[in-house]
Amino acid sequence: MTAGDNTRTASASAALIAIDWGTSALRGWLLAPDGTVLDRRAGAQGIMAVPDGGFDAAYRAFTAEWRAQWPALPALAAGMIGSRQGWAEAPYVACPAGFADLSGRCIVVGVRDAVLTIVPGLSWQAPDAMIDVMRGEETQIFGAQQAGEKDGLFILPGTHSKWARVEAGRIVAFATCMTGELFAVLRAHSILGRMMPADGSMGHDPAAFDAGARDGLDNGHELLRRLFGVRTRGLFGRLAPQAAPSFLSGLLIGSEVRAAREAGRAGEGVSGATLIGDAVLCQRYAHVLAMAGIAARSADADVTPRGLWLLARAAGMIGA
Amino acid sequence: MTAGDNTRTASASAALIAIDWGTSALRGWLLAPDGTVLDRRAGAQGIMAVPDGGFDAAYRAFTAEWRAQWPALPALAAGMIGSRQGWAEAPYVACPAGFADLSGRCIVVGVRDAVLTIVPGLSWQAPDAMIDVMRGEETQIFGAQQAGEKDGLFILPGTHSKWARVEAGRIVAFATCMTGELFAVLRAHSILGRMMPADGSMGHDPAAFDAGARDGLDNGHELLRRLFGVRTRGLFGRLAPQAAPSFLSGLLIGSEVRAAREAGRAGEGVSGATLIGDAVLCQRYAHVLAMAGIAARSADADVTPRGLWLLARAAGMIGA
Repeated sequence: MTAGDNTRTASASAALIAIDWGTSALRGWLLAPDGTVLDRRAGAQGIMAVPDGGFDAAYRAFTAEWRAQWPALPALAAGMIGSRQGWAEAPYVACPAGFADLSGRCIVVGVRDAVLTIVPGLSWQAPDAMIDVMRGEETQIFGAQQAGEKDGLFILPGTHSKWARVEAGRIVAFATCMTGELFAVLRAHSILGRMMPADGSMGHDPAAFDAGARDGLDNGHELLRRLFGVRTRGLFGRLAPQAAPSFLSGLLIGSEVRAAREAGRAGEGVSGATLIGDAVLCQRYAHVLAMAGIAARSADADVTPRGLWLLARAAGMIGA
Repeated sequence: MTAGDNTRTASASAALIAIDWGTSALRGWLLAPDGTVLDRRAGAQGIMAVPDGGFDAAYRAFTAEWRAQWPALPALAAGMIGSRQGWAEAPYVACPAGFADLSGRCIVVGVRDAVLTIVPGLSWQAPDAMIDVMRGEETQIFGAQQAGEKDGLFILPGTHSKWARVEAGRIVAFATCMTGELFAVLRAHSILGRMMPADGSMGHDPAAFDAGARDGLDNGHELLRRLFGVRTRGLFGRLAPQAAPSFLSGLLIGSEVRAAREAGRAGEGVSGATLIGDAVLCQRYAHVLAMAGIAARSADADVTPRGLWLLARAAGMIGA
């Protein structure tokens, strides 16, 4: 992988603009024909920050330098940009789904010198009447596969965590948990947040995190009750205000892992849990998974551009 | 029970000012020696709305008319007024606890012509390391007992729902669920709220409520996942925006009831569930409980002044 400094020397071989365009963030990579990262950039223009009708202008501004040097470079994006709230809706592809299903169902937006291809998201109708959706995570999972993680369980922690099962290179089922969002709204708006430091200091407290995770793994099936335990632990001096966010985080992740075990998404008979996402958050998940007896390793950091490169190749946008 | 119009005719027999002083509301009753309600009033001066050091003034203003007519009337209050954030802290009494335990541990605040006695709350250290607390609900439960509901399960739905077990007239154990608060923060601050009507219209949709309750009863142990199902049901046109609040409410209550059954708080071997609280909310809970095969009836509406009257009598504040 090559950093931005080397753009000029490597520029003769650029083959693809790869973009991860999510709800609150926008990241881009300039890739060589073999998938090597030549340059990268990040912006705050997530789809919620783009005004109505402003996607074309936002895209042009974000990629201006790359397109100036490479006028004919193909561009592929994944993420919420393909949702109903994005530039244009790329309808969900139903699971089980693999590379060919995704690469064959991309949509194209933009005009003239700034055309962008968008990867569709995935949907999964579970046997228990739940529908699940993802946009962007499918690309990361396929990117991680090329790095050697072929089959098994892929866990993508975050605002809406994803637990995906991959068999023979296809995503066959997945589940979503609102863990990250629930933490955020409870921290900001509930009685639990009011017992935490008002200055937003969020230093990690490993002991409190462990205690919360243990509670979640043991009792996370009664989450509505256990949440109140965060408050009473504080009331009785068993949890310091500055440790409360770590306890709450552990409790929620523990509850998520417990439910995954119970539903057979993780645990006995499920091989090779691979974590994808923010490095610190993946460490926290790996720790709770280990407490539950589930071994997990973190995927390479650049699975997103890798996945986009693979999909672009499968879609014939760059030479194989 | 007599309404405010009758204050003058009944005034010769007033014996107690009874007050329920909670986080966001303040209610008061003028009671006759036999506990009959002679007058009642409500205010918005919950403890969070009273400025530092302002409890004495707030109490004087709220009770001014009654005290002008009855200068020597004793006054008893229950609720968060006895918490660390209230007028003065009335330390929790540990369960199992009955009338005598509560009436013997009241504290007295205020001076001269405006003295107020405050009922302590209850705490319960569960065998599974959870601590639970209540302030105000204990008084309602004791009030409901006099109306005939001696023993069994008492459920008090609300921001922080309480499930209390009463044996031989004593509260022996209880659990708290953050059901109401979780509904409120998800409605106001989460992606689930953003799919609901922005105008706050909250008409009850019985079919959506039932579907949510069924999901909660069946799958509420994986609440973090099921919450995301509210969003995807909307995405796929299976849940109208205006019906989503009812579905979410049913899901959360269903999850609460499921956990209570699983923990043995309700269901087989537990007799006589009595609901106490807001009439509409109690109806909703009764409906979900019935779906789970648990019969429940609602307590009399005036259990709070009834409980305060009983406690005042036990404390010797009024003649027995």
